[in-house]
Amino acid sequence: MTTQTLLDEIDRTVDQATGRLLEFLRIPSVSTDPAHHRDCGRAADWLANQLRDIGFESSVQPTEGLPAVVAVGPSENSTALFYGHYDVQPTDPLDKWDHSPFEPIIEDRAGGRVIRGRGASDDKGQLMTFVEACRAYRNVTGTLPRGVRFFFEGEEESGSPSLVPFLEKNRSHLSSSIALICDTGLFDHDTPAIVTMLRGLLAEEVTVSGPELDLHSGIYGGAAANPLRILSHILSQLHDHQGRVTVPGFYQNIPELPDDLRTQWKKLDIRSQSLLTSVGLAHPAGEVDRSLLEMVWSRPTCEINGITGGYGGDGFKTVIPATATAKVSFRLVAGQDPATIRRQFRTFVQSQVPADCSVAFGEYGASPACSFSLDHPLFDHVRAALSAEWPEDPVMVGCGGSIPVAGYFKSILGIDSVLTGFGLEDDQIHSPNEKYDIRSFHRGMRTWARVLSNW
Amino acid sequence: MTTQTLLDEIDRTVDQATGRLLEFLRIPSVSTDPAHHRDCGRAADWLANQLRDIGFESSVQPTEGLPAVVAVGPSENSTALFYGHYDVQPTDPLDKWDHSPFEPIIEDRAGGRVIRGRGASDDKGQLMTFVEACRAYRNVTGTLPRGVRFFFEGEEESGSPSLVPFLEKNRSHLSSSIALICDTGLFDHDTPAIVTMLRGLLAEEVTVSGPELDLHSGIYGGAAANPLRILSHILSQLHDHQGRVTVPGFYQNIPELPDDLRTQWKKLDIRSQSLLTSVGLAHPAGEVDRSLLEMVWSRPTCEINGITGGYGGDGFKTVIPATATAKVSFRLVAGQDPATIRRQFRTFVQSQVPADCSVAFGEYGASPACSFSLDHPLFDHVRAALSAEWPEDPVMVGCGGSIPVAGYFKSILGIDSVLTGFGLEDDQIHSPNEKYDIRSFHRGMRTWARVLSNW
Repeated sequence: MTTQTLLDEIDRTVDQATGRLLEFLRIPSVSTDPAHHRDCGRAADWLANQLRDIGFESSVQPTEGLPAVVAVGPSENSTALFYGHYDVQPTDPLDKWDHSPFEPIIEDRAGGRVIRGRGASDDKGQLMTFVEACRAYRNVTGTLPRGVRFFFEGEEESGSPSLVPFLEKNRSHLSSSIALICDTGLFDHDTPAIVTMLRGLLAEEVTVSGPELDLHSGIYGGAAANPLRILSHILSQLHDHQGRVTVPGFYQNIPELPDDLRTQWKKLDIRSQSLLTSVGLAHPAGEVDRSLLEMVWSRPTCEINGITGGYGGDGFKTVIPATATAKVSFRLVAGQDPATIRRQFRTFVQSQVPADCSVAFGEYGASPACSFSLDHPLFDHVRAALSAEWPEDPVMVGCGGSIPVAGYFKSILGIDSVLTGFGLEDDQIHSPNEKYDIRSFHRGMRTWARVLSNW
Repeated sequence: MTTQTLLDEIDRTVDQATGRLLEFLRIPSVSTDPAHHRDCGRAADWLANQLRDIGFESSVQPTEGLPAVVAVGPSENSTALFYGHYDVQPTDPLDKWDHSPFEPIIEDRAGGRVIRGRGASDDKGQLMTFVEACRAYRNVTGTLPRGVRFFFEGEEESGSPSLVPFLEKNRSHLSSSIALICDTGLFDHDTPAIVTMLRGLLAEEVTVSGPELDLHSGIYGGAAANPLRILSHILSQLHDHQGRVTVPGFYQNIPELPDDLRTQWKKLDIRSQSLLTSVGLAHPAGEVDRSLLEMVWSRPTCEINGITGGYGGDGFKTVIPATATAKVSFRLVAGQDPATIRRQFRTFVQSQVPADCSVAFGEYGASPACSFSLDHPLFDHVRAALSAEWPEDPVMVGCGGSIPVAGYFKSILGIDSVLTGFGLEDDQIHSPNEKYDIRSFHRGMRTWARVLSNW
């Protein structure tokens, strides 16, 4: 078989492949919402069946939480472990969607056709590029690509609580010499990217409690501790005027960027401005002395992801609430230990809670940052395939969004990962009207086909 | 008729009076929630019928918003205009109630029997003390008390948007020489209070907008402006370390307390500590150099009444929201003009919104503070009745909760108000499990009976 035959097969069947993806997208597998846990099971079954159809020995495996999908080909010793996740983000705010998030549609746009729906880009569309490449390989050669293993989890969007125990329990089933992770994006429309460093994540919930019950702000206003006022104060203390995080010890042991990478990123920095302009912003909001790419790739951050307290409905209620809650997350980089940062953060918050009030914390997952060695031969296969399939050569980048699994593959399975994907900045993942370009889906499949044919 | 006959009649019929109040409390007249506007209409009808039963000429009058109830006795020139409001606060958080808020119950407690339900104390139970006193008067004398007029509004808990136009339109119908307002509380269990100064209220909603859509805090975290971070910062700037409000000009033209009042309040200050201890607090949170009573009666405040933004549900969502909103209210004192404070507040907020972001404001009512002259003879009748009915003599106090209507009675009808009521600190008005002591209800009726008999 020549590579070209394989690429032709993909071009010929792209519509059927798209149809299968739409079917997958109709399953509302929102992992963070218990109301959707049955749907997550359905998504896992659907995926396992797809792989079985192609000829893989696939199964839905129980975990402590939502099920995982594992599949292997005929060859006993595996080269590459392909990873993706079948769960998706919640859809709120629902009223901002132009159509129902789980009734995906194909939309014709100036830039080309796109698939709209929750999970189209993160991560159902991306993981299917590899599944469909394997299907085409099978159709053309009658055999399966050798040494391929699949592992799909269903808790990526809710902090992967069951991932570590599952990996530890299934070390042998999953053993490979390297992992392929398809959950990232192109650098820009024409430039593919391989992620060689990932930020970690620490997610915390902070609840400040004051009076024993909600109070009338007229009768008690001015005299009673107001948890919303205390919480606002604490949150406002998390950054200084230079945009630096103020939690003591936060920047300890963080290495500076190697010069070669810094030079490469400098070249990319101008083009990266579209990261902000595409969402209606113009001014980088991070550390004043850092480049935009450093802010999102190699520097740690602290973000407030939600605040709730008091009356939020229509009209007005003059209340001093008994409690106020914030969800706060940190993006971590090499040198930062999640457990240590958590301890430092909680101490920092505690120190600002006045007498009369108390604070409680909730844990929503923690994963360290990591970076990868580029020695494995598959890394060069991927780089070559990307060069051949896309207008520009791939660039080595960092990734702001944490992909904990890559860190665990390293620490538990002892393997590096090659992270590449075909999402675009304007895919609106985690937001209303998420989409995935047909071009990304199509070239993604072709890219993997090239990798498989040179296996 | 002797006063004693009237008091005996009230003692004899207290259970029937309580039964009528329970009926009133079963109507969920939440004025701030459009879903309950029909119930507000039902509450107005119920009240108008009660007054008609007693013999008053009563009617439900349309306003630009929710209806008002107006009633007059036979005598053409009225002495006193009695005011109360039939609307109640929302019930959230509903899960904190021990029973359904609109299925009131009588509860036996160590301190005596109480009526539990939304509105029991604020203000349905209180306004019924006067209605029932009139009923007893009618039962005993066969005639109605002379010179009594009623005005009940249904928008007090939602900023009284229609009050001013209604008063202006009905000046003649409502003209009296003084108003009686029953929407306040006892100073403590044995000490009645007459409110001679009221704080005003300014209620604002602040919405900060940043990115055009919700963003993934991994991909954009550190680079994109986060409305929750900006809002927290702005809110944290509203007070300094001395607990003073920092809005420029906020304290301009505020007179100091007269020495005689300061002396009286000093005596009360120790006993007032229970204001905090009764809700699980111990440390006054206001201006460091002010007494607790000044904080809640004579000093202006700024409180955050609600914050919403980002993800507040179960689990965690790593999102940077496109917008974040806070409800902020100010308690105003003599010398502060609501319109001026609003302008100063908005300018203050505007000045802290960074490039890339915008802010929008919502108005939820504004009313000035006011204080009353004590010259009208009815003022002495009330003081004497309170002295006779309660263990301790009444004290002249301020009121932290704004009662806009008292200000409008002065500015539009040109009359002062006598404000007294029988609520207790632990009535939990505006909170779950609101209650009203049967003792307050009973002695309240007896207090008004004494006033009516010496009319």
